[in-house]
Order: sequence, then C-alpha cells, then structure tokens
Amino acid sequence: MAKKYVYMFEEGNESQRELLGGKGANLAGMTRLGMPVPPGFTVSTEACTQYYNDGEKINAEIEKQIFENLAKLEAKMGKKLGDEADPLLVSVRSGSRASMPGMMDTILNLGLNDKSVEGLAKKTDNARFAYDSYRRFIQMFSDVVMEQKKEVYEKILHDFKEKCNAKSDQDLTADQLKELVKMFKENYKKNQGVDFPQDAKVQMIEATKAVFRSWDNPRAIYYRKMNDIPGDWGTAVNIQSMVFGNKGDTSGTGVAFTRNPATGEKILYGEYLMNAQGEDVVAGIRTPNKIAQLEQQNPAVYKQFVEITQKLESHYRDMQDMEFTIEEGKLYMLQTRNGKRTAAAAVKIAADLYKEGRLTKKEAILKVEPSQVDQLLHPAFDPKALKAATPLASGLNASPGAATGHIVFTAERAKVLKNKNYNVILVREETSPEDIEGMIVASGILTSTGGRTSHAAVVARQLGTCCVCGAKDCHVSEEKGIVKIGDRIFKEGDFLSLDGTTGLIYGEEIKTVPAKIGGDFKKIMTWADKYRVLKVRANADTPRDAKRAYEFGAEGIGLVRTEHMFFEGDRIKAIRKMIVSKTKVEREAALAELLPMQRGDFEALYKEMKGNPVTIRYLDPPLHEFVPHDVESIKTLAREMGLTYEDLKATIDGLHELNPMMGHRGVRLSVTYPEIAAMQTRAVIEAAINVNKTATQKVVPEIMIPLVGEVKELKYVKDVVVNTIKTILKEQNATLDYQIGTMIEIPRAALLADEIAKEAEFFSFGTNDLTQMTFGFSRDDAGKFLDAYYESKIFEYDPFKTVDQNGVGKLMDMAVKLGRKERPNLKCGICGEHGGDPASVKFCHRIGLNYVSCSPYRVPVARLAAAHAALKYKYPKIKK
Amino acid sequence: MAKKYVYMFEEGNESQRELLGGKGANLAGMTRLGMPVPPGFTVSTEACTQYYNDGEKINAEIEKQIFENLAKLEAKMGKKLGDEADPLLVSVRSGSRASMPGMMDTILNLGLNDKSVEGLAKKTDNARFAYDSYRRFIQMFSDVVMEQKKEVYEKILHDFKEKCNAKSDQDLTADQLKELVKMFKENYKKNQGVDFPQDAKVQMIEATKAVFRSWDNPRAIYYRKMNDIPGDWGTAVNIQSMVFGNKGDTSGTGVAFTRNPATGEKILYGEYLMNAQGEDVVAGIRTPNKIAQLEQQNPAVYKQFVEITQKLESHYRDMQDMEFTIEEGKLYMLQTRNGKRTAAAAVKIAADLYKEGRLTKKEAILKVEPSQVDQLLHPAFDPKALKAATPLASGLNASPGAATGHIVFTAERAKVLKNKNYNVILVREETSPEDIEGMIVASGILTSTGGRTSHAAVVARQLGTCCVCGAKDCHVSEEKGIVKIGDRIFKEGDFLSLDGTTGLIYGEEIKTVPAKIGGDFKKIMTWADKYRVLKVRANADTPRDAKRAYEFGAEGIGLVRTEHMFFEGDRIKAIRKMIVSKTKVEREAALAELLPMQRGDFEALYKEMKGNPVTIRYLDPPLHEFVPHDVESIKTLAREMGLTYEDLKATIDGLHELNPMMGHRGVRLSVTYPEIAAMQTRAVIEAAINVNKTATQKVVPEIMIPLVGEVKELKYVKDVVVNTIKTILKEQNATLDYQIGTMIEIPRAALLADEIAKEAEFFSFGTNDLTQMTFGFSRDDAGKFLDAYYESKIFEYDPFKTVDQNGVGKLMDMAVKLGRKERPNLKCGICGEHGGDPASVKFCHRIGLNYVSCSPYRVPVARLAAAHAALKYKYPKIKK
Repeated sequence: MAKKYVYMFEEGNESQRELLGGKGANLAGMTRLGMPVPPGFTVSTEACTQYYNDGEKINAEIEKQIFENLAKLEAKMGKKLGDEADPLLVSVRSGSRASMPGMMDTILNLGLNDKSVEGLAKKTDNARFAYDSYRRFIQMFSDVVMEQKKEVYEKILHDFKEKCNAKSDQDLTADQLKELVKMFKENYKKNQGVDFPQDAKVQMIEATKAVFRSWDNPRAIYYRKMNDIPGDWGTAVNIQSMVFGNKGDTSGTGVAFTRNPATGEKILYGEYLMNAQGEDVVAGIRTPNKIAQLEQQNPAVYKQFVEITQKLESHYRDMQDMEFTIEEGKLYMLQTRNGKRTAAAAVKIAADLYKEGRLTKKEAILKVEPSQVDQLLHPAFDPKALKAATPLASGLNASPGAATGHIVFTAERAKVLKNKNYNVILVREETSPEDIEGMIVASGILTSTGGRTSHAAVVARQLGTCCVCGAKDCHVSEEKGIVKIGDRIFKEGDFLSLDGTTGLIYGEEIKTVPAKIGGDFKKIMTWADKYRVLKVRANADTPRDAKRAYEFGAEGIGLVRTEHMFFEGDRIKAIRKMIVSKTKVEREAALAELLPMQRGDFEALYKEMKGNPVTIRYLDPPLHEFVPHDVESIKTLAREMGLTYEDLKATIDGLHELNPMMGHRGVRLSVTYPEIAAMQTRAVIEAAINVNKTATQKVVPEIMIPLVGEVKELKYVKDVVVNTIKTILKEQNATLDYQIGTMIEIPRAALLADEIAKEAEFFSFGTNDLTQMTFGFSRDDAGKFLDAYYESKIFEYDPFKTVDQNGVGKLMDMAVKLGRKERPNLKCGICGEHGGDPASVKFCHRIGLNYVSCSPYRVPVARLAAAHAALKYKYPKIKK
Repeated sequence: MAKKYVYMFEEGNESQRELLGGKGANLAGMTRLGMPVPPGFTVSTEACTQYYNDGEKINAEIEKQIFENLAKLEAKMGKKLGDEADPLLVSVRSGSRASMPGMMDTILNLGLNDKSVEGLAKKTDNARFAYDSYRRFIQMFSDVVMEQKKEVYEKILHDFKEKCNAKSDQDLTADQLKELVKMFKENYKKNQGVDFPQDAKVQMIEATKAVFRSWDNPRAIYYRKMNDIPGDWGTAVNIQSMVFGNKGDTSGTGVAFTRNPATGEKILYGEYLMNAQGEDVVAGIRTPNKIAQLEQQNPAVYKQFVEITQKLESHYRDMQDMEFTIEEGKLYMLQTRNGKRTAAAAVKIAADLYKEGRLTKKEAILKVEPSQVDQLLHPAFDPKALKAATPLASGLNASPGAATGHIVFTAERAKVLKNKNYNVILVREETSPEDIEGMIVASGILTSTGGRTSHAAVVARQLGTCCVCGAKDCHVSEEKGIVKIGDRIFKEGDFLSLDGTTGLIYGEEIKTVPAKIGGDFKKIMTWADKYRVLKVRANADTPRDAKRAYEFGAEGIGLVRTEHMFFEGDRIKAIRKMIVSKTKVEREAALAELLPMQRGDFEALYKEMKGNPVTIRYLDPPLHEFVPHDVESIKTLAREMGLTYEDLKATIDGLHELNPMMGHRGVRLSVTYPEIAAMQTRAVIEAAINVNKTATQKVVPEIMIPLVGEVKELKYVKDVVVNTIKTILKEQNATLDYQIGTMIEIPRAALLADEIAKEAEFFSFGTNDLTQMTFGFSRDDAGKFLDAYYESKIFEYDPFKTVDQNGVGKLMDMAVKLGRKERPNLKCGICGEHGGDPASVKFCHRIGLNYVSCSPYRVPVARLAAAHAALKYKYPKIKK
C-alpha cells in the first residue's frame, strides 16, 4: 500500500506535529475538540520531503491523495471546487513542525475562476464580495506561486482607486472590482506569458508546490538559521474550506492571545476587524478594534469565543495565539498555537500557570526558553520611544541589551566624556586589548568588522555591555573621527543608539529602561536549580565580573584568563619587559614585578567567590599580542625599555607568526619559559594561602594549563607547578588543597584523553579553539566563506555559537569517556563561548560534564538550560 | 622475590637485546658460542629505567645484585676487585637496544687505586703498564663520571712529555708515569674538591651511574632524535674483566668488519695496533695496520680470528663489526654487532648473502634500510674531495644529494647563469612560488629560514634537487646580493657546495659524482615489489616529475597540485585576473583563459603515466598566494589589469587572513566560486577524453576535493563536478570512467568519515594539514618552540616527518574503518610528506591503506618500506 501523505483534519491529532506540522496538528486537535473549524485536510511534511527528493515535483501518488481528500471535502461541504454555480473555495497555507510565523506563504480564495466567480456572486448574492475575493486571489497567486511581487498589483489598485475617486477599497463597486479583475488578469498574462489558470485543480497543485518551495525561500532559511530549525524538516500544507470575514458587517476576522504576550497578564488580548479578511488586519490600513469591543458588537459570538479560548488554554496548558473569522455571525476557528511571548511574559505565564494548578513546577520551567532569559538581564529601549525610531543599519547582535549615548572613537575619549557624566557609545573598526578601559565605561560598543567571537563581542558579553559588531554598512574612519552609516556621517558627540538584542543601529537618542528582575523570575530560577545536574560557573577575569557572576548564581569561576589582567597600566610594561628579556634572569626579574599584582588579583577573585572553586588558566595568547606594532609606539617603548629601536623592532618581528592561532602560545609558552608558569603558580598559591587565613570557606584553586596536545607537555609544566607549590608551602609552613588540570582544546588532546587524564585532575573543554581546529578554520577568517555555507545549506547554524555535536561533540564525548576510564572521578567542564548557549548546555548534560562555565550575564541562561536538559535528557552514569 | 637486574654473560643470550642491550646480548651470545670472551656481567636496561624512576639513584637492590655478580666474577677470575696483590680490573661500558655507536661513554681499567696499581705492577712485572693503566683510568673516570673534560689531562700529559723530552707516550718510563699519576690525582682533587676515590666498589657504582646518565647526554639525545629511538628505552651497562692490548709487543687491539662496509665487498676489513688499548686505535696518533698484516705478525691468532669472524657472520647471518684484543698472544673478543654500512654496501651485502644461501629473499630485503636507499638516487661528493673540505655551517638536510656551483640570489639570475652553462646554487632567505623556474635550473638550494616542509624543501624534494634549508648561520641579504656564512661573505658567482644528505655547507667547489644504480639494487627492488601490499604512487605536478616517478616505479600519481601549474608565465596573469574579478561572468572569462593551459598540462601528465591512475587535487591555497603584496608590484599589476592602484590594493587587502592556514582555501574556494571547480573539471575530463582517444591504456582520472570537513560541502562541489562532466560527455558524445574523492586532512573529516564516504569514492590522507590541525600548531610557526620540545623529551621526533601514530594515526585509523564501514571498497591513500617516510609507510600498511604517494625521488624508498612492512606486519582484513 502506498504511504499516506494526506490527512483529513478529523483523521489527525495534535500530537502529530512532525507529520502534519504545528498548524495542521492543531487544526486536527481543534476539530477533535468539537470546535467550529472549517473542514479541510493536511498534506504532510513527508510529502514535502518527497517533493524535494523528486527534484521539486509532486508525484502521481501524492497528487492522487490530494484529489481523493478534496473529493471528501467537497462531499462534506456539499460544494465542488471550481463549480460554476456554487464553488468550494479553499485556503492553502504552510505549517511546519516549529512555528515560523510569517515566514512562509498563504493563498486564500483558491478555486475562483472567470466562471465560478459568477456562481459565487449569484449564490452569495454579493457580486462585490465575489470579485473582491477573485482579485485578492489573483494577487496572492501571482505573488506566491508565480513570484510576481504583489506591489505591482497594489499599484494597479492604487491607480484604479484614484481614477474611480475611491478613498478606500470599500468604496469600489462590484462593477469596478470586475474591471479591476480584468486589469489584474491582463497584468498576469503580460508578465507570465500565459493566462491566469482557470482549472481549479491546477490552481491547487501549483499552490501546494509553491508552499513547499516557500520552505526554502530566503526569509524562511534565515529564520531557521536564527532559530536552529533543521532544513530537512519540510513544511506541511493545509488546505481548508474558506470562510469569509469580508461578507459584510456581520462578518469579521481577528487574532487573539489568551494572555498578554508582552507582559503575561491574564487577560484576553487581541484585535479584530469587521468586514475584512485576515490580511487586512495585518496590513494596518484600517485600525482594528480591541477584542473586548466584540462583546458589544456580538455578545453571543464573544461569549462563544471566550469559552473556546479558555478551553484551548486548558487543553494545551499554555497561552494560545489564535486566529478566527466570523462569517455572517457565525464563529470559525482558523488556527491555534502556543503564543510567542517576551521573556517577561514567559516567566509570568509559567509562574501563573503553576499557581493556577495547570502546570507542575517541571512543566513551568520548560515553558521559559533559556535563550530568552538573557533579555531580562539587560536594559531595554522604552517601547514607545523605540516605535518612533527608524533603524539606520544593522550588524551582528553580539551582546544583548540597549544603549544610547554619544559617539566616541577612542578609549581615551570614552573615559574623558564618561568622567563628565555623558553616556558614550564606543565606535571602532574593531577593538583590541588596549581599548579595554574605554569598553568598560561605554554604554554600548559598535564595530564595523569582526564576528560574534571578535574581541569586542567577547569582552562586551563579559562586561554585560550592549554590543553590535561586524556592521558592514558602518564605515569607521578613526583618523578622521567620523563614522559613515548608510548616507549619514556622524562625528564625536553625536547621538547613537544600539540594540544588542536585534543588532539594529539608530542615529538618534532613544530612551532606555533598566532591567527589572521580577519575583517570578527568581522563583522559576530556584525551581530550575533544584532539577539541574550541571553546575554553572562563570568566566570572569576581574572582581567586578566575579561579583556579578556570583549574584547571578555562579557556583565558581570556570575560567580566569590571566592575560586579561596584563593589559592595564604598569602591568603591560612589566609583561613587555619580560617579552624583550634576553635571558632567563632578566625574564625572572620582569616576572617578579608582575607577581604582587597578579597575586592581588587572585586574592580579590577568591574573596568574591566565597569558597567556590576558581579555575585559573595560565598565560595563553601569543606574546605578540602584548607588544605594539606601529613605528611610533615601538619607538616610545624602546625609549622606555632603554633599547634601540632596531633591537626592539627585531624582537617584535621575531614574534611574528604566519598562523598565530596555531603558534607559540598556551602551554608552549610555559615549556619554553617555565619561569612564567612558576610566577603564576606563586601568585595563585600565595593568594590562596593569604585568603584562606581569614576566610571561613576555603578556596581550592584549580590550575589550568591551556592548549595541551600531549601528556608529556602537561607533565613537564605540571612538574614546574608542583615543585613551585612544594617550595611555597615549605616556605610558609602552610597546607593547601589544589587541583591541576588542563583545557581540552586541541583535537589530539581529546583523542588521547586517557593519557592526558593520567596527569590532569580535571578537563575543561575550550570549545572555541577545539571548534577551530576540528573544522580547520579560524573564526577570524571564516566570515569570508561562511555566508556561502549558510546560503547553500552546508551549514545551518554557526558552530562558534552552538557546539557542532557531530564533529566537535564527538571529540568531547570521546574525551570524557577516555578520561574517566583512566580517572573515574575526573571533573569535566566547558569554558568556551558555547558554555552559555542553551543547545550546547543540553549537549554538555547529555555527555555527562560536571559543569558549564559562561560569561556572567549568561549564568541564568545556563542555569535554566541545564534544568531543561535535566528534565528532558538522561545524564550518563559515571562509574566511580 | 626481587626482580633480576644483573646477568652474568653466560646467563643471557643474543635474543635479549631489550633487556641486556645490543652489546650485552651479543657478549652473552659469543660466550654461549664458546668464543674467547673475557668474563663479565650486564646490568640490565630495566635497572636504567629504575635508576631514572628513583630520581637518578641506584637503589639498594640493584647495588646488591651488582656486588653479588661481581663476587661471581671474582671467583671465576680468581682475582678480587681492588685487591692489593692481584687486582681484578674491569671495563664499564654502555649498551642500548639499538646501536648508538660512540654516543655513550666507556671506562677502562676500573679497580685501580694507589695500592692495587702496585699489586698489578708486581703481578705483571710491568710497572710501566700498571701506571699507564692507572693514569688512563683517572683520566676516563674524571671525564665520564666527574665531567671534567679529558682535554685538561691531555694538556698535563703533553706538557709533561715536553718536560721529559718524550716524543710519544711510549717514551715515558714507569717512574715518569708514576709521577704523571700523581699530577693527575692532584688535578682531580683541585677540580673536584675531594681525593680520587680509592674504594673500587665506589668506583664501580659511580661509573655505572655515569653510564646511565650518559643515556641523556646531548649527543645521545640528538642521535636518538635523528634515528627515531625512543627516550625511555634506557641503556644497559656491561662490566667486563679487562684484557690488555697494551702489555707489550705480543699484545694489541683492533676492530674489523666481515665485509667492506663502504662497498659491501666480501673481504675481512679492519685495522689493529700492537701494544695499545682501544682508544689508541680510534685516536689516530699511531697509524694502525691493515688487518691482513696480522697474518704475518701472528698467524695462529689471525687464523683463529678469521675463523671466529666467519662463525659470527654465519651465526648472525649478517656482516659483523667486531672489536678484539690480543693479550700476550691470546685473542679475546670484546664485541660483535651487525655493522653499519653505506646504502651501496647494504644492497651488495644483502644480494651476496642471498647468493651465498645465507639469507632468503625476504631476509635480504629486510637487510636494506629503506631510509638509506635515498642515497643511491642522488649525486654525491667525491669522497676524496670531500675529505679535503671543511664545512662552514649547517642547516636542515631537507633534500638529499650533493651540489656544487656558483651562488645566485634570484630565480632570474639562476636562469641567466644556467643558460651560460654554469651550475648554480640558489641562495635565498626563503623561496616562494615565484622562484620556481630558478629552483628548477639550480643544482642546489640553500635557505636561511624555513623547516623541512617549507616551500624550498618540498619543491626541492619534488625536483630531486639537493637542498639545505633553515641554515641559521647563513644571513642572506637579497638586496645587497650577499650571504654571510659564519664570518665569510659570499657574493653572486662565488662557489658554494651543499650536502643535502647531512645538511653541511661548504664555501668552496667540491667535485661531485653522479648516482650509480647497481644491478643488485634493481634486483632487491624487484623482490620488494613482489612482497609489498601497498601500492606506491608519486606526487607530481609536471610531466618531468611524472616521467621520473614512472621510471622510479610509481604506479600512478597520488597528488597533482593543480595550483603549482598556475605560477608560470601567462597563467599567473590569468589567475590574477580571476581573483580581481568582481562578478561571476568576469571570473568565468578569466577561467576560460586558464582552461586550455590546464587541459594541456593534464594531457601531458596522463601520457607520462601510461594508463595509471592520476589523482588531481582541485585548487587549494588561499588566493592571496597568487597576488603581489609590495607597492611596486601592485602598481604594475594594476596597470596590466586596467585597475586603479587603490582598487587593486583593496582587493588584495581583502584577501588578507589572520590565519591563512585555516582560512579561505581548499573546498571553500569551490563553494564560494563553483566556477573554479567547473573549469578544473572541464580541463581534467576533456584532457582524459583526448588522451584516451589514442592511448592503449585508458586513464581513469581521480578528482580530489581538498580540505573537506563536512559531507555537505563535498556534495555541493561534487554536484558541480558531476553536472559539468555530464555536460561534457554529452557535448562530445563520449564515455569516461572517473572517480571523485576527497582529502582527509581536517580532523572533522576523519571523525565523520562514514558520512564523507557516502559521497567520496576514495580518501587520500593529507597528513601535513592533518598533523597541523590535530596538534594545533602550524609547521611554519612551530620552529619557535619545537627545539624546547625535543630538549625536554616531550617530542622525540618531528611529527611532520613521521606520522604521529598515537594522535594523527588514531584519526587515520578511525577514518579508514568508518569510511569502509560505509563503503567497503573505499580506496585509501596518503599524499602528505609522510608518504615517503619509511616508518610512516609501515603505519599506512598496518592500518590497511591501499597506497602511499610521495615525491618521485622517494618512490624507491617507499617501495622498499612497503615491502618491509608487508614482511613484518599483518595487513588488516578488508570486508568487501
């Protein structure tokens, strides 16, 4: 027997989202609940997949099943498609598994042709309605099926209205609409070279194909990429008998939510228009009525509708987003789905549904999307002010939140203006470590180059500062002190506003409102903490970061990037002195200058974390990042260092690398200069001894050696570390618990994790580098080709944002298993950017990591994601 | 019971190399054969490992066993160590598993002190001999155990001889030697702060420790690195009763080989000195006698010795290298081992031993080291001329052979001088693709930077041209047209000679002799081909390479680097035109210019390979490698292209990458510009159709997509290729067999090889890149830290020379298994530099590759290595 590709609504049910798409499943569900749903059938997602497999063709079997179900529908409705006397009209709509609102195409009034339109006119005794429906159909069919933009028809309509002196569409008479249809058809023929199809079955098959095709239109692809929806799911097609909201003043159409999707308030929320079709509500030509007004206009229908909405919410146990139509006083439900909502609404709705006894705590937790929570932790634009503003350009939404302020182009000027109490937006081509002080004081950061993991993006997320980066339409000239955005030129002091959540850039001041973390949010986070298995730590380099992370619920620091401490003030001088040292003795002298500063940093971090573990990564970046590269700066530095320019230049040139990512960095620095590891060990250990003298909860520092690829290199540096620790403990006659571990960020380390685990007490996956090495591309350079990869669907998401589970994840899973085979109590964590990405957090749970570590502002996101993971997936058994 | 650490010679046997070291095992073997071996015992390699594990200490158990065996030895000899009347004297010598000639230390005459020397004098009635032995012992003990260089003693001896008017050591009287001993002891005390140890047991333990320590002296480490000997093997210590060649004119000592180690000629070969100890033979103060002279001097001993050497060669079935001593007319054998030999000798000896019925063909093949064979394929220096020359400096022995000629600094000048029939040596800081024509005409290439896989090295090996690279003591100033080597300055036209086999550089002309490939060599290679499983292909980009490869026995081309074809003449212009194209149409026009050239290249290659498979890799390097980067060249190019300087500069800047190794290259170029793949496909396929029209053996081109990390990217490009092929076959109404495969050089491709194999008909491991990505370091930059890695024994060999079997090899093995699970007949090969490395070839056999591909000159090496692998290891079963 052939596979079943088409289902009448009454044959399906709401659990069949994968097969019927969300809309189809819910139409089936509502039909089963006895609600007034116009009959119809669904062509399944499997038919879509088959369509693509057949080279974008609907095969004979599927076509046969469509027409068989059409016959059933015709029987049920007592009308025939294309009938000249009383034609059945249908809508054709997409519906994928995951909701993709507005992303795909819809065709209404299908079945009209030159003859059936007359039948409809006679049957309804409303020629105006019949011809209005026909012209709409031609327009939609042209747009969706034939890819002639509807704007062409809008223009014809507009010109025709002027000619007829009609103010609105409503003013056109039946005859005028008949004339308009003629013009639309002429335009169609002119453009397509053929007549508008008169065979209604041809219309239906072509429309179905168009919906299938729409799965792959650019906005759908973009939406999927943004929402991590796989490209091979496909969409279903819903073919449903038409009901008309535009049959006169007792007809209408609208949309409603069972609760307010912006705030979560429990109130029926929505709007409708009488004598209109759905598109009119969206188009905004007429101002719709608030849903409450329906009570006066048609109390019976309103009562019925309210009952239905309540029943639907009870049934689906979630806030519903519904479409309805009233045809000549009779209510029809066209769609219901779980409504999209803001983060604040999500939190309130989940907490309320729990209070109302509709959801368990576990279910309530799952109603709040971890990725949304981020919104709750940053300032936002005042919604009214935002509505009045027009974006000038956009970039990558690198760090969320909203910022408004005065443009500055240098860190120096940022500090000066901030000191005068101006909010500043730092605008640069890209940022570098020297900009750090400017970045700290800025309200927002805008860069014209660099991706989501560029310096600007990483630091901004760390700071919780709003950042839009890689904005290609912004041309920054730091020399001239201007930025050209589109056609406008901005200079220092001009206002600019950035939306780090959307990536939009505005050339004006927009009022912002601070984040409010409501009580419900806290409540849900507390529940989440109860269920999650993964611990959540933060990546933090400063006491300020550590404090914020602790407040956000971090259970330790998973990554202190010690080099970040080296860029400020005297430190950069000391480290440069170390770099230009020619002998070990000189180097040790320079390091001795750094020791007290670094020790002080660690003491402050330990104190903030109140006995929670602190993982300190030893010096990682290539040394050339610490030295200047332009002639003037080199000359200045040479003077400071008492060197000749030539000498210093030669040293700096000697640091140049062809592929710095794969160069002299990480553990390789400690192998060549063990004295660096020795100094850092002294700082880590002496700080811990000092803090533990008075602290009630003792810190157990975790020393992390980066970039290890071979157990012997870890052992070599570990010996230096352990010997230094022994010396200190003896000197001070002290005891201290500590751990020594490594990052797993080189493929070889993952492959040989059993060997590495012989020397490492913990693993922390550095998934940024691991992703680069595993894919063999640098995140700094991949921008040049990744767009082509997304367009051609080779990649469907950014592997630097979400862990590539097939490849990088396979290495991670392998490393955890190999490592624990050698050392059953091996602690495993992640400290790459992925540690704050919900999908990646879930993966970390599934492979049995002990913790994730992310930037402070992502800690709540990770906590919630970890709870989701625990509620959805098993945590692997770990042999002890 | 405690582990046995010490073995009397009669307890061991020659199969125990791992435990007793090579020397110890053979002393045991000779003892068992009843040969006159001075009794003694061996402290095992396990004791050495234990010594290092105990923190460089000999523990009580080992010391106990040493003294127990000493007691047995004393009983056997009827003498006691340190005895005042008739002391037992012993030698203490190292002996590791693998022969490391001259790399470690030896102490003779141990057991002498101020009292036992008198006993020895009386017992032998030879005070002169006793004191001469004592002064030698003090000198060796100081040198080896206390690390005071023996030169200090040599000077004392020298001054003393002058004072005594003694011409040679022999002229010193017993009393004078006694006086000398006193001076030696005073010097010892002055330097060490303590008296020379009088306790003979202390002497023995200290000497044993010194031998253990010598395992880790720099020259031993260096030797191991050069010969791939693991650092954790350790050395055994042989303690043997002394016999003396310096007891007068009936005593003597010598070394001999059973065959000539330079030529392989079957003749007893060696030399000896009467009245001397071993070191005198080596020192070269007196001229030793040819071994044949012994027949006149002592016919009985000579006859006995000849019999022993023949017995040893029969027994070991290989050419033996032996040490012997005659003490007062009695012959003693001190050592035997398989002798080191030149490649030519190895080939002749193996062939002769087969002819003599001593070895089977299989055994004969195994007697020729694959790594040596290389020597037979390149010109060499005339040995006499070389002896007279002094090296000025050294670099990396990047491509073997010898070259002598006139210095040039540019490719241009190389061509000019070569046209005038001068042999030229191209000297550069480093070479780049633009130098290729100069490299082709050069007899030798010298660079001051870059490693074994630098452009110069890779191209030179490809060309079979002698190359020394990364010579740090050569300072090249291309502008000034000079190179400073050490203190000498050379300019264009000056003579220079390079030894690519040793890396030595000579500032003079040295005569070279061409390679002779003898009949025996051919014979052994034919046998080898019979036994090997792996096919051997060559990496070849030009008809010249392909021709040579075919002559050397290549069974196909495993890698054509198509981009190498783009650097010559008009091609570079065409490719630059493609790069600066702003539209697909422009790009296609530029590519159309390249098509006929590339098609012609492929036709020529196919013809040379006579129906053997040819694997063509599509464009791989980042595009910036094809464009100039200095202002003047950009200006010139801009004029040629009809562009403004600014425009072209912007395009070139846009190609800049932070990590080009991990940038926009390989398959990524074909994803962004599918028209490149289309053009290359057209060239590959049209050329094959053209050649197959007349060829008797049809070529089956193998199209290889590089740098794939995800099956969808391979599929995307494969679709372009397949569609292009379909079009061509239709155009020409032709048929053609072809294959489409990929390189496995990105870790992710290896991890997901089962998915990749769905689209790839073959895998070729690009182990250069795979090694870089797996280790996370770039071969261009690793030079900065790899020395530290070798010194600290983190790495014991260069992973770019020999495949890292633990890490990179694990990925390769995984990829082969996963790939064949999906596609049982998947063809797997290797085309990285490792394909010509014998150890790597063996690994490729063990994981079941189908072929290796290497530079033409390595083909015979790989053929022999593949035979060795087949004779030593199982080839995995492949499910069909």
